[in-house]
Amino acid sequence: VTTQGDIDLVGEAPLTVERIRAAAGRIAGVAHRTGVVRCKSLNDIAKAHILAKPEMFQRSGSFKFRGAYNRLAQLTPEQRAAGVVTYSSGNHGAAVALAASILGVGATVVVPPDASTAKVAAIRAQRAEVRTFDPDVETREGVAGEVASRTGAVLVPPYEDYEVMAGQGTLALELAADVNELDTIVVPIGGGGLMAGVATAIKAVLPSCRIIGVEPQSADDTRVSLRAGHIERNTSLLPETIADGLRAPQPGALTFAVNRRLVDDVVVVSDESLVEAMRFCYERMKVVVEPSGAVGIAAILTGAIQVQGQRVGVVLSGGNIAAAVFAALIARPLPSIRLR
Amino acid sequence: VTTQGDIDLVGEAPLTVERIRAAAGRIAGVAHRTGVVRCKSLNDIAKAHILAKPEMFQRSGSFKFRGAYNRLAQLTPEQRAAGVVTYSSGNHGAAVALAASILGVGATVVVPPDASTAKVAAIRAQRAEVRTFDPDVETREGVAGEVASRTGAVLVPPYEDYEVMAGQGTLALELAADVNELDTIVVPIGGGGLMAGVATAIKAVLPSCRIIGVEPQSADDTRVSLRAGHIERNTSLLPETIADGLRAPQPGALTFAVNRRLVDDVVVVSDESLVEAMRFCYERMKVVVEPSGAVGIAAILTGAIQVQGQRVGVVLSGGNIAAAVFAALIARPLPSIRLR
Repeated sequence: VTTQGDIDLVGEAPLTVERIRAAAGRIAGVAHRTGVVRCKSLNDIAKAHILAKPEMFQRSGSFKFRGAYNRLAQLTPEQRAAGVVTYSSGNHGAAVALAASILGVGATVVVPPDASTAKVAAIRAQRAEVRTFDPDVETREGVAGEVASRTGAVLVPPYEDYEVMAGQGTLALELAADVNELDTIVVPIGGGGLMAGVATAIKAVLPSCRIIGVEPQSADDTRVSLRAGHIERNTSLLPETIADGLRAPQPGALTFAVNRRLVDDVVVVSDESLVEAMRFCYERMKVVVEPSGAVGIAAILTGAIQVQGQRVGVVLSGGNIAAAVFAALIARPLPSIRLR
Repeated sequence: VTTQGDIDLVGEAPLTVERIRAAAGRIAGVAHRTGVVRCKSLNDIAKAHILAKPEMFQRSGSFKFRGAYNRLAQLTPEQRAAGVVTYSSGNHGAAVALAASILGVGATVVVPPDASTAKVAAIRAQRAEVRTFDPDVETREGVAGEVASRTGAVLVPPYEDYEVMAGQGTLALELAADVNELDTIVVPIGGGGLMAGVATAIKAVLPSCRIIGVEPQSADDTRVSLRAGHIERNTSLLPETIADGLRAPQPGALTFAVNRRLVDDVVVVSDESLVEAMRFCYERMKVVVEPSGAVGIAAILTGAIQVQGQRVGVVLSGGNIAAAVFAALIARPLPSIRLR
């Protein structure tokens, strides 16, 4: 593991299974232990034994609560008084808002001006402050950083933070404990924080398990970067995909340093296959999965990953999608919908 | 329990917890053990501890598989060779078709001429034969009886059968084992077979638990019958409700004899509240519940049942609903949809 010149990383060993175990202890009794979902029709189609981790059942509707709570639970009394700030119009923003509300910490969430009213309402429902910005003159990171430096609030990034990654990794410890053996685990990749946490946990507790990432076709930055051996941006400059949680323009520096060591392969799926996967989850599994959460099922159903005869863990990462959008997607086989 | 002149029933004691325990042994390893779903937002709103039994995760998408498999597993070799016949365009038909397919038994399902193509396709997918009839000159029971007498096939009624009722009751044994104590259990009532099984099991293992049925406003036959002390038909002759699984015109004679002894109360809910409950399950619980399966959540959300401070079991009986219909219901607050 000292390959590829990651001297700093190996020296500090910043993301370890011990750190993930500590996170599991911290979130126990606050986060839900989401269990495992099995589906006979899916097994029959895939000719495999699929063990799905249903993070749509997690508090705030996605795995993001694990990392957010793990991070916020470690604030000092002074930091708690100063509050936190983050940038995300999606699941990370809602998760930070909920974790802050539980811990009695003030939170500011910087959202783009075109954020959906449903998501903004969910953040406000947790009494978090919502800040918009002008994309022509500012970035969301810049506005969040400005809030942090002005108010002393702690910036909680969506993935470039080892405690956030460690929190996400707790779901893999749960899955491994519940299913004993896995030949392959399939994980959505956006900025790479979920994957970094899961891969670190799995390599420690199920070392022979193959680790496969899935990205949308138009947001394939981690696949491209892994092949190049260094961080590259998405093939398309403005990724158009319904998987709104996986549109990160490029891997994080910290997450990529972990994932380049641990991830065996990354595959991509089309938006059409995501809609089919969401419909499959609706019709056969009776669960609500958002587009970003359905990439693993899509990769299995399309054959993008070979899983025949294997025991396969699949992370269903979240279920937050406005009713009208979900309705339009499942009612039609080929959507012409744009989420932003 | 010798009140109300149920001499035959007491003499034979046809539906007992022992019979339900035997059913549980028979379906073990074939039916799914569906576990328990909890939802913090629901608890907060209801000011109660709600423990939902998620039968949309059961094989065939509803609890009906429990009763159908329990009944078919007890056929003699001669009966297996002759096959089974039933009448139902909905969950019972699909459940019998699946149970028959698993056991290698031929099955005929009599469906109305206006049955949805999706449901008929689901029945055919299990290699069951589908028979329609002319409602102007025949009844579905008549056609099924004619098939039975002509071919020797065993008629498997949707609820007027103690082995079917015993199978449905197995879900209550699972719930009681998983949650230990319950103050109230809330159960959908159509023909009354699910309630008869659940009530018999609960009275045996959690004798102090209150047993509450829920019916759609326009299909309130069991509520009316319990108040009258004898079987009466629905208030409306042609119940118009989106809860297509709960449209039985009157309680079954066998199910009513059980339920009149064991059910503490029956409440009714509107179709509008069913849509709200389905949306709640979609948005907060991330599960797909069909209208008939949502009556318990609707009764809690509307306050039709008082549950404050209690531990409350709620049966979510199924999740079979065509994607286009589900989409229309969750996308709009007040649907103008008719299912048939």
